[in-house]
Amino acid sequence: MNKFLDKINKRIAERKTFVCVGLDTDIAKIPARFQKSPEPLLEFNKYIIAATQDYAACYKPNLAFYEMHGLSGWQALAATLKCIPPEIPVILDAKRGDIGNTSQAYAQAVFAEFGADAVTLAPYMGEDSITPFLAYKENYSFVLCLTSNQGSQDFQKPDLYKKVAAKIQDWHARYGNCGAVVGATHPQEISGIREIIPEAFLLIPGIGVQGGDLDSTIRAAQNTQNSGFIINSSRGIIYAENPRIEAEKLRDAINQLI
Amino acid sequence: MNKFLDKINKRIAERKTFVCVGLDTDIAKIPARFQKSPEPLLEFNKYIIAATQDYAACYKPNLAFYEMHGLSGWQALAATLKCIPPEIPVILDAKRGDIGNTSQAYAQAVFAEFGADAVTLAPYMGEDSITPFLAYKENYSFVLCLTSNQGSQDFQKPDLYKKVAAKIQDWHARYGNCGAVVGATHPQEISGIREIIPEAFLLIPGIGVQGGDLDSTIRAAQNTQNSGFIINSSRGIIYAENPRIEAEKLRDAINQLI
Repeated sequence: MNKFLDKINKRIAERKTFVCVGLDTDIAKIPARFQKSPEPLLEFNKYIIAATQDYAACYKPNLAFYEMHGLSGWQALAATLKCIPPEIPVILDAKRGDIGNTSQAYAQAVFAEFGADAVTLAPYMGEDSITPFLAYKENYSFVLCLTSNQGSQDFQKPDLYKKVAAKIQDWHARYGNCGAVVGATHPQEISGIREIIPEAFLLIPGIGVQGGDLDSTIRAAQNTQNSGFIINSSRGIIYAENPRIEAEKLRDAINQLI
Repeated sequence: MNKFLDKINKRIAERKTFVCVGLDTDIAKIPARFQKSPEPLLEFNKYIIAATQDYAACYKPNLAFYEMHGLSGWQALAATLKCIPPEIPVILDAKRGDIGNTSQAYAQAVFAEFGADAVTLAPYMGEDSITPFLAYKENYSFVLCLTSNQGSQDFQKPDLYKKVAAKIQDWHARYGNCGAVVGATHPQEISGIREIIPEAFLLIPGIGVQGGDLDSTIRAAQNTQNSGFIINSSRGIIYAENPRIEAEKLRDAINQLI
């Protein structure tokens, strides 16, 4: 059985939350009291995890914000992962993808070395860059399909994202553990993607700072079980005056639309 | 002035070599005498650097093979970079790419934290995922265009790689430090890419284990200065019985074709 699906489905059922808290911890943006700590990233993350865990369906650290600090960043990430309650799944936002033997090494890094439940992947290099991750049957992989940023206009639109969505569906049909990243800044396209990918999980960033539309996104993103999606908020929650209240608000806003 | 271009052009002129040695150091494949060392990746890399530096135009460690070992892997990579003679440029094969503020963090990781001269990037997320790297004017970014693996058939062909090539040329025209990754397994397509990208550097993997055709690749890849390309070999050199002789052979084989 898939460890990520077990955890996330249980979490959604028990806690009635679809909120993914993005741990994009930018040292320049965290409050001064954490910046002065000898372990600023870890101390800030502990504070965020304590504040938001009642409302978090999952956590999603983006590796970039840890890599930028070199070894101390990687130590902070490893220590952060140990502070996340084991029943809450972790998606490592890595956007990796390379030729087959190299993707095997990346898959080992995220799933075996870091122990993440799920990962995000970039599809440009095609099937043999993705399947080494899918071979980890207990884990889940979210492949970029239609991203929330302005640059999604450059290559993904007007048609490439549909071709990628069809491949994601094919991989999900064969491996059972492949979902898609779809930005909330494209609410009209999400319905079309849901038609191509009827059941797999969608990881949806782009709410909040990026300006995505929650209402139409939620309606389009649900699968036949009124589930199968996670709404990520990073900056909108972690830099809020009160992250706990912000996470609760987002949970409630989503639940009202289901 | 661009630090990568300075170094690589000088290296090509002085040493008459277009060989990029890929430090894809897989602990399962290195000789037993290194596996027993307390620092197997570093000790093996030192041996490879000593053996090949007379023939190396540049070195290209792929981050995956270091990340897979967690903190000790990152330490081995950082230590390896210190062992590379400063006149030989380093390309970190990272294939990164994320929304703007996240790509900024990745750019800081590779250029400021690791001190690499160049990086490889994945283009799926479009312009705002690439320009934070190009903003590092002293460094160079190689964007995936047409990769050497089987999966290049899935999305890149038949036309996407041309669209990406045109964007790479646009970025190069605006920033002066953007090249392309083009696999030697597609010799016929390289000429077309060179027409779209007349001057920027091409990083060409796929020789050796992957079976690319050196002769037609070299003829297609040169720019108007009979330069502007680097041929990568990873497994073909570093796991050879005699890596020094293998690097020399590849240098000579390339030079005979120019």
